[in-house]
Amino acid sequence: MTSAHVIALDAMGGDRAPEIVVAGANVARVRYPDTQFRLFGQREKLEKLLKRFPKLDGVSEIIDAEMVIEPDMKPSQALRRGGKSSMRMAIDDVKMGKASGVVSAGNTGALMAMAKLALRTLPGINRPAIASTFPTQRGQSVMLDLGANIDCDADNLVQFAVMGAAFARSIQGQRRPIVGLLNVGSEESKGHEEIRRAAEILRNAELPLEFYGFVEGNDITEGTVDVVVADGFSGNIALKTAEGTASMYSDFLRATFRRSLFSKLGYWLAKPALNALKNRVDPRQYNGGMFLGLNGVAVKSHGGTDAQGYANAIGFAVDMLTQGFNEKVIKDVELLGQFSGVPVEAVNS
Amino acid sequence: MTSAHVIALDAMGGDRAPEIVVAGANVARVRYPDTQFRLFGQREKLEKLLKRFPKLDGVSEIIDAEMVIEPDMKPSQALRRGGKSSMRMAIDDVKMGKASGVVSAGNTGALMAMAKLALRTLPGINRPAIASTFPTQRGQSVMLDLGANIDCDADNLVQFAVMGAAFARSIQGQRRPIVGLLNVGSEESKGHEEIRRAAEILRNAELPLEFYGFVEGNDITEGTVDVVVADGFSGNIALKTAEGTASMYSDFLRATFRRSLFSKLGYWLAKPALNALKNRVDPRQYNGGMFLGLNGVAVKSHGGTDAQGYANAIGFAVDMLTQGFNEKVIKDVELLGQFSGVPVEAVNS
Repeated sequence: MTSAHVIALDAMGGDRAPEIVVAGANVARVRYPDTQFRLFGQREKLEKLLKRFPKLDGVSEIIDAEMVIEPDMKPSQALRRGGKSSMRMAIDDVKMGKASGVVSAGNTGALMAMAKLALRTLPGINRPAIASTFPTQRGQSVMLDLGANIDCDADNLVQFAVMGAAFARSIQGQRRPIVGLLNVGSEESKGHEEIRRAAEILRNAELPLEFYGFVEGNDITEGTVDVVVADGFSGNIALKTAEGTASMYSDFLRATFRRSLFSKLGYWLAKPALNALKNRVDPRQYNGGMFLGLNGVAVKSHGGTDAQGYANAIGFAVDMLTQGFNEKVIKDVELLGQFSGVPVEAVNS
Repeated sequence: MTSAHVIALDAMGGDRAPEIVVAGANVARVRYPDTQFRLFGQREKLEKLLKRFPKLDGVSEIIDAEMVIEPDMKPSQALRRGGKSSMRMAIDDVKMGKASGVVSAGNTGALMAMAKLALRTLPGINRPAIASTFPTQRGQSVMLDLGANIDCDADNLVQFAVMGAAFARSIQGQRRPIVGLLNVGSEESKGHEEIRRAAEILRNAELPLEFYGFVEGNDITEGTVDVVVADGFSGNIALKTAEGTASMYSDFLRATFRRSLFSKLGYWLAKPALNALKNRVDPRQYNGGMFLGLNGVAVKSHGGTDAQGYANAIGFAVDMLTQGFNEKVIKDVELLGQFSGVPVEAVNS
């Protein structure tokens, strides 16, 4: 029912680019047969790789890009010197309307800076945010901002809430997502002034979401809400703390099963069940930092992912386009207009 | 070699008080035979409970306190109306020098507000912070502040670093603890101005600690540093996110082993090894929110802990006294004086 989407790929970004990018595009092609790809990078390398996947080759175009944005390049440097980079050219492709979405596994800061400059934000959105899905006790949720904005005012947070909810409706099929603001307690008097003011606006606005109120760090994995909204500083710390804790648990568990002959045998017996657990928290499944709020679709893949993970990042971009994510955000943010000036009486520390 | 320490116990604070408090004190008594206890709470109840533990009875005194601070009481209410509460009377006991430390499993906000008012801060410390130990891939670390101060300036963060390092030296036996500031990236230009300024001060100050620089959320459980310093907002979110993630993993694992007969058998075989894992991350082992920077020792036990966990909270208080934690802080913070006015040239976003 949907028309073909064209996705621009920064084929040179990521730890194992361009191999993983091409292999990932091939996995995505099977899942989304209508999609076309525009691969930005070193033509010779890409031509050689595409020969392995004739069907992908048939729906792909290579655009030669001589430069690569290095992982340690500062966003300001990337803006100044990255004009001919595979990353920038892929972004500009969206700007020029040749592609409708861009995916990169390269330098996050550079990608955000260049995407912001080239694509600009959607009407009514002051700043883009980075969102990601993650596993919870009840299923999956989405959290934003994960680091694009260190300092956020109340309007930023409210706009993040609108975007997060539109994402949950578009991608996770929730009709009326439950949205919470990340804080250090659930009482109305808790936290910074900005967060209390954002809560007040969300409590009064009529939006296609249900505002839950404040949530705490443990609510993230408990799945208390469908959408966790945070400033980029707290959101980044929460995300990385969760990743670190999960990885510590996996490592401890691995060491545990190696302790004795009995535990090794136990592992062997429980292996199918343990594999199911592994799938449930498989990071590849959650591979995609969605840059929400841009006038165009941009997804950041984890730099170290494999073809499956990269295909998932492409999948997020295609789904956002198919579900009209940006159109939803524009519509919802219009509803906000009348509420953003509400005086905040409830705010008194 | 150490003289006897007297610990004041808020015997009525916590989900299962006073039973757990008395049972916990009895466990602590065995570990710290020199310690004496002053139990604040309903005399009749406490007398009955102490009869079960004659040896504890021999080193304990009951002080009748009619009122209990409820878990949902606001700190401001507790300050106004809690004068005759078991919590406040136990704190005042330290103020009057009858006890040298206080332990409570009651309302955290009320405990901090009353302890701050009654005990005041150590010379050179502007604000007290809440610290806790936690398991890492390499052993144990300590993190502060976990929620006492939502907004922190550079001096607050630097003082937290000094206190965290003094704690690691006192309790975890580290000679020169490695200290990191929690941030969203490791580069000097990352994060809020306060955190960059704090880094600059710590980089130049000569203190009994090694300043590592910035750490990210995943570094917390990786054990990159011995002491993680954060403002109370980020620290609280990191702590609760880690707790939530750990608990999700435990629940997933439990469900995993129940999936089939094979996985049940596997669990049974691996049980001794799995129990060792459980001990490694046992929350009771990390039960103790240390209120650092007060003119006296105050430890908050988790409200829902058991006797072992409560005994550990008492243990932290006794160890801080035995190791002269507060004396170390006073000495180290004096070293800071000459550095706190350093102009920060490196700070430019």
